[in-house]
Amino acid sequence: MHSFRELLETFEKRFNIYQFPQEPVELYDAARHMLQIQGKRIRPILCLMGNELFDDIVEDAYEAAVAIELFHNFTLIHDDIMDQAPLRRRQISVHEKYGVPTAILAGDVMLVQAYEHLKYISSEILPDILHAFNQAARLVCEGQQLDMEFERRHPTQIPMDAYLHMIALKTSVLLAASLQIGALIGGAGDRNIHHLYEFGKHLGIAFQIQDDWLDVFGDPEKFGKQQGGDILANKKTFLLVKAYEIADAAQRQQLDACMQLQGQQKVKRVIELFEQLHIKEWAEAEKKKYTDQALHHLEEIAVISSRKKPLEELVSYLLNRTS
Amino acid sequence: MHSFRELLETFEKRFNIYQFPQEPVELYDAARHMLQIQGKRIRPILCLMGNELFDDIVEDAYEAAVAIELFHNFTLIHDDIMDQAPLRRRQISVHEKYGVPTAILAGDVMLVQAYEHLKYISSEILPDILHAFNQAARLVCEGQQLDMEFERRHPTQIPMDAYLHMIALKTSVLLAASLQIGALIGGAGDRNIHHLYEFGKHLGIAFQIQDDWLDVFGDPEKFGKQQGGDILANKKTFLLVKAYEIADAAQRQQLDACMQLQGQQKVKRVIELFEQLHIKEWAEAEKKKYTDQALHHLEEIAVISSRKKPLEELVSYLLNRTS
Repeated sequence: MHSFRELLETFEKRFNIYQFPQEPVELYDAARHMLQIQGKRIRPILCLMGNELFDDIVEDAYEAAVAIELFHNFTLIHDDIMDQAPLRRRQISVHEKYGVPTAILAGDVMLVQAYEHLKYISSEILPDILHAFNQAARLVCEGQQLDMEFERRHPTQIPMDAYLHMIALKTSVLLAASLQIGALIGGAGDRNIHHLYEFGKHLGIAFQIQDDWLDVFGDPEKFGKQQGGDILANKKTFLLVKAYEIADAAQRQQLDACMQLQGQQKVKRVIELFEQLHIKEWAEAEKKKYTDQALHHLEEIAVISSRKKPLEELVSYLLNRTS
Repeated sequence: MHSFRELLETFEKRFNIYQFPQEPVELYDAARHMLQIQGKRIRPILCLMGNELFDDIVEDAYEAAVAIELFHNFTLIHDDIMDQAPLRRRQISVHEKYGVPTAILAGDVMLVQAYEHLKYISSEILPDILHAFNQAARLVCEGQQLDMEFERRHPTQIPMDAYLHMIALKTSVLLAASLQIGALIGGAGDRNIHHLYEFGKHLGIAFQIQDDWLDVFGDPEKFGKQQGGDILANKKTFLLVKAYEIADAAQRQQLDACMQLQGQQKVKRVIELFEQLHIKEWAEAEKKKYTDQALHHLEEIAVISSRKKPLEELVSYLLNRTS
């Protein structure tokens, strides 16, 4: 069994030398620009771990992992265009640097390249892998659409279950599918795959709740982001949607008033309201709930427990960040 | 053997009831909007013809044909965004109706759906089909990038061979790949596939030359487009690129001056210059050259000649439009 760090090292060796064609220069420069903005590579490593949960890692899993990471980067390029985001992990976003048309195409060509890696997967399992990949890809697009629609709504018009569904599509589904694809390659049965998929889905939601929590309550120096960045951007987070759900009429008016404020005063005032509404404690309990559910599904997978260790360690690593 | 019309009828029956999921409504309404703007379905029919050139049409070919038509519609949605085109076949374009973000996503999800149809193809040929499809998809993206770059250049900065390469990528490659994929499904050998691919490539170039010719010299009532639409838009067509190539210094200056004009005066003046430079005759000779080359490659394919009849008829149908 291999740890996250070990798998990451092997994956990076393959992925960092990723070659696009040379011409047209601008198109592939745009694609390369995205790939050099290095991410955490959680999804491809989940794919490798999904494989190793059931069997030794095979070449197919590396091809799938590369495809998944390319797909993820494709979504980031297109999401940044749609969200008009000037930055991505503190670097200039692709469309800001190369313009929207080239950024659209760079995303398109990256998605096609993702599918080109699936081609190398053993043909007897290729149809299932292709289906799992397509399914996840479609749901991620649906999640992004819902996210955009929710951003235009007043928070009182976003029921918590609809919000949760959107987050599941936009974030969790790809984590779950990465594990699922690895497991398919590892020869897992349907029941085990089901539990592994649900593990990934619940893990993703717990991770997103934590992310929203850290933005407000985390140590900005350790977290590496501006405190209250989501608040300043009026972003619909778990915390904000919940706050509106449980607020009384007067508190809702106060939240509405906060939306009009700017700067540190806004952050301070929203945090005060969150404290009145015990949002911090609620978020911590929700994160624990989803983490427990994830671990319950992991437990249900019928393999010897030592095989589960890297995934258990990953849960700790991902979900024990307090800053 | 089936004619274009017969194959079209069968294909339309399958494709017209194409179902996207219901939710999110806006995303799939945008996708549906594109699909109801009906095209000529040349590419999927080429795929079916590629199959039937070598064997009876099988289910795999229909799945591939649907995938190819979805892919083509995906490129139209994204191209219209990049080109800021308000109309597509006289109807409002997807991004004009649903906004750029939803149009980007509708294109993305349509591309994913295209790949979902490939999943149904027999697994022993799936890797080859997937590769051919990916290869074509990548080249089409490259062609669109080059097209955008050329639109920013002065025509004297576009050598004819570079222009031809761009058109081949943007237009011909998908026609060629549609035939190739059909042939792979029909069990064709490498040599036959090579000639069929080249047939499609040359056919595509001949078709594009004719399209440019019709814009200027066709009968606008029969052609169904405004005469000189390309001229009014300063579009880099075969005709314009050639005109700049062979013009002397004085004629180039006159062409440059025309670029600044508007309306019917512009169309009239450019046509006069084209006549001075014998562009009409040049284009007709070029179209004939590429048509002959296409037919030569068709001849080289080792199947009994009656099997080639539908493709020969298609060549006549596509390339004998004089208006």
